[in-house]
Amino acid sequence: MNGAQALVRTLVAAGVDTCFMNPGTSELHLVASLDDLPEMHGVLVLFEGVATGAADGFARIAGRPAATLLHLGPGLGNGLANLHNARRAGSPVLALVGDHATTHHHLDAQLQSDIETVARNVSSFVRSSASTAELGIDVLDALAAAVGPPGSVATLIVPADVSWSDGGAVAEGRSPAGTLGAGTAPDEAAVGNAVAALRSKRPAAILIGGRACRGRALDLAADLAASAGARLLCETFPARLERGAGRPEVERLSYLAEFATAQLEGLEHLVLIDARSPVTFFAYPGRPGDLVPPGCDVHLVAGPADDVTAALEALTFLLGVDHGVARRAVTEAPELPSGALDALGVAQALGNLLPEGAIVSDEGVTAGIFAPGATAGAPPHDWLTLTGGAIGQGLPVALGAALADRSRQVVALQADGSALYTSQALWTMAREGLDVVTVVLANRSYAVLNMELDRVGAAPPGPRARAMLDLTHPTIDFVSLSRGLGVPATRAETAEEFTVQLGAALAEPGPSVIEAVIPSIL
Amino acid sequence: MNGAQALVRTLVAAGVDTCFMNPGTSELHLVASLDDLPEMHGVLVLFEGVATGAADGFARIAGRPAATLLHLGPGLGNGLANLHNARRAGSPVLALVGDHATTHHHLDAQLQSDIETVARNVSSFVRSSASTAELGIDVLDALAAAVGPPGSVATLIVPADVSWSDGGAVAEGRSPAGTLGAGTAPDEAAVGNAVAALRSKRPAAILIGGRACRGRALDLAADLAASAGARLLCETFPARLERGAGRPEVERLSYLAEFATAQLEGLEHLVLIDARSPVTFFAYPGRPGDLVPPGCDVHLVAGPADDVTAALEALTFLLGVDHGVARRAVTEAPELPSGALDALGVAQALGNLLPEGAIVSDEGVTAGIFAPGATAGAPPHDWLTLTGGAIGQGLPVALGAALADRSRQVVALQADGSALYTSQALWTMAREGLDVVTVVLANRSYAVLNMELDRVGAAPPGPRARAMLDLTHPTIDFVSLSRGLGVPATRAETAEEFTVQLGAALAEPGPSVIEAVIPSIL
Repeated sequence: MNGAQALVRTLVAAGVDTCFMNPGTSELHLVASLDDLPEMHGVLVLFEGVATGAADGFARIAGRPAATLLHLGPGLGNGLANLHNARRAGSPVLALVGDHATTHHHLDAQLQSDIETVARNVSSFVRSSASTAELGIDVLDALAAAVGPPGSVATLIVPADVSWSDGGAVAEGRSPAGTLGAGTAPDEAAVGNAVAALRSKRPAAILIGGRACRGRALDLAADLAASAGARLLCETFPARLERGAGRPEVERLSYLAEFATAQLEGLEHLVLIDARSPVTFFAYPGRPGDLVPPGCDVHLVAGPADDVTAALEALTFLLGVDHGVARRAVTEAPELPSGALDALGVAQALGNLLPEGAIVSDEGVTAGIFAPGATAGAPPHDWLTLTGGAIGQGLPVALGAALADRSRQVVALQADGSALYTSQALWTMAREGLDVVTVVLANRSYAVLNMELDRVGAAPPGPRARAMLDLTHPTIDFVSLSRGLGVPATRAETAEEFTVQLGAALAEPGPSVIEAVIPSIL
Repeated sequence: MNGAQALVRTLVAAGVDTCFMNPGTSELHLVASLDDLPEMHGVLVLFEGVATGAADGFARIAGRPAATLLHLGPGLGNGLANLHNARRAGSPVLALVGDHATTHHHLDAQLQSDIETVARNVSSFVRSSASTAELGIDVLDALAAAVGPPGSVATLIVPADVSWSDGGAVAEGRSPAGTLGAGTAPDEAAVGNAVAALRSKRPAAILIGGRACRGRALDLAADLAASAGARLLCETFPARLERGAGRPEVERLSYLAEFATAQLEGLEHLVLIDARSPVTFFAYPGRPGDLVPPGCDVHLVAGPADDVTAALEALTFLLGVDHGVARRAVTEAPELPSGALDALGVAQALGNLLPEGAIVSDEGVTAGIFAPGATAGAPPHDWLTLTGGAIGQGLPVALGAALADRSRQVVALQADGSALYTSQALWTMAREGLDVVTVVLANRSYAVLNMELDRVGAAPPGPRARAMLDLTHPTIDFVSLSRGLGVPATRAETAEEFTVQLGAALAEPGPSVIEAVIPSIL
């Protein structure tokens, strides 16, 4: 057995069955090994940023890591932005990066570069595998680091000769590394402080993030907040928020510092459950970056390495919280929109038509701001957001989420500017026959930057600055672009057209794209 | 004057007049400053890899650096692959990377990451600017590092508050940093050794690379080789090779180790002029990576930091070489192809129609292998190749080259698989109205990897491995894709169609795409 075969067999034995790949010459033994092991699903992508974003989306839904196969330093570079987002999402991702043979390194051939230094930007674990015999162990070590908790990106660099040499051995005998662990037990002092804060009946909020945004942890957090008379807030960009009718109502912290400040104003206690103390997304001249109001005490009860559910169980037990007391979202469908199409109309149609169990990959940026509100009463669904702020995540995450659970409808709510970073994901959606409806919110500009121009205090921009934020000249035709990548597409310019097209796209199996032509909200 | 204004004014004063930008919030003061200074041409791109590849192409033709404006660590990551290629090309590039305000770093906001560690992968110079007053000096220091020689990537990280604060000062008073210097004087001992080697009349070759592939240096190298009875070879992937009728004939070293070994067989002396000692592109089991034949002495006369022309002047002087003795390529146009279209037919039509002064950006990979031969007798032109092996360079380099000299016709010879990494470049070609004809060599596969599968000794691949190298299911429609990005496009399936379409595209101003549907040569 060569190293590549041992690597793939070790992955399968550990419960990793999906690898998003964009291979090159140095990874071909890994590609060849796919034919030995039908349990491993190799998913071809046309660009590395699609591979890494898809692995993030897969992990958010499956709760276990996928692997990516990337080609040397430049391939890792191309995948870096979405690994950044995965890191911020706490998603377990095994980034396999092929390298030249160890015997080739000293020759500094054209594609040689320092892979490890790039990997450190995003990875909790970086190792270059040194021997075929140890490669299986290296894989298990990397997987253990990836699943944590905290979930993280683990990068294993695999030199070509480590792959192609004989003497590989499947590594087994530990507990399956393919699922996220629960984490460490809650810290008693931290729990005690939070209990005291919530008992004080002073203005308090519970800020949830990460794993506290779903399942039992979410229910517990909601009941806790309701019982204690505290607000229930969620971080601005949760990796996966379970929401919709019948689920707890959670208020997301605003991206806009002005709004977030208002949301937090007057609080005396802020209890963090797998969330970080809130800060502004960017810095603005003369404004504080720390959003915690003066005089507010911050209580970190559970961080990314902790057992979040156990921490919430402890809090609810100590505070005598009754289960099921939190307010749940009621079923409510917005009316279908009519007339000229705009961002609100898109949101209303989505809220009206979103099916039960849907997964929404939200990279709508400014044009998507009405969507969470309009879908609050839709059937239960998951909402995946731009955790790390590196645009170009939406389509790959939708791809990965759809592969993680083929029974669910995925909707990618995608701003036009950011759609153009990783539109190659559409091709893989078609190739894999995935049920992803992509709504491109085509306002023909980097609208968020037009807004930010004022907020950062830049001089009133002239025509040359404005041109750098404008996506016309020429106008991008997403219908043509999508068809070029093998995905059927339509364009909607009225609310009625959009509603009909969205309904049809949701009803049809396989991927589709709707270009929703809308004015900028700004 | 704020820092951003001082930065842009310093650039303009130093001769940098083009900035390829994909800005975000932290770079908006730099964007706003464009309206003050019409001498700075801000070129909007839709993806960072386009910006960095375009800066590389610009430098290869203009001989001076452009700047790129990227958004934090993820933006740099997206641009990394083409910075790798620029590094290998010795292209001077000033990579400006915006960062959070210095006051924001400790908050570890969503987009925060260690930018410097990523930059080190590709940069000769990395600095995070610490003060508005010093920003102009930082720019000049970075530019000085970029222009070298050797030309290189210099990364200057610009925190948002360094940009927006008042107190900026234009830095001037040094020699303009915008052009490449000549380099250090040749080493006498190295020159002497090479003279002795070439006088020995033993089998010898002169291997040129970098700046020795053009202008006076190329002429000198060719005359030297002809006089000394030595072969004249060129590195496999030159950044810019001047060729065509009337110019010296240069034999490029093959990408395939088997062929390169045959090219070098029997040599006893190899004289390197701004070229590196030849190694195989990848490692292959059981084969040496070093291509220098046993017993061959390697003489490095001039490296990337040296004055290449002066070194060649010294060699020709000491050896008493007459100028103009080298054989020049004669004007010769291949016959126009007919019948079914294939890679050879594309090359023949190109060789027949290529206009004088054209610039060819060659990322044709396997499907492009006939093009250099078929254009050897075309009117004088420049040939730009994939210097670092990171695919996704071809279209951005074509974009940058076209902006560097709008009077010249650019042809992008582009393999289909690699076209999909940075196809966003097409949109900027349209926006800037650039004369770039892109020929997509659509063989519907990663053909080079099918070839490499055998060469790396992987087991005979089964259907699952083959599927990872296949670009059908669905077939990519480059006509539709290009039109989506605002560039007119046609498809050619016969040689006659291709010839007509290529002639029309060359005659028309502005960008166009021809999808040349061809079988794989393998």
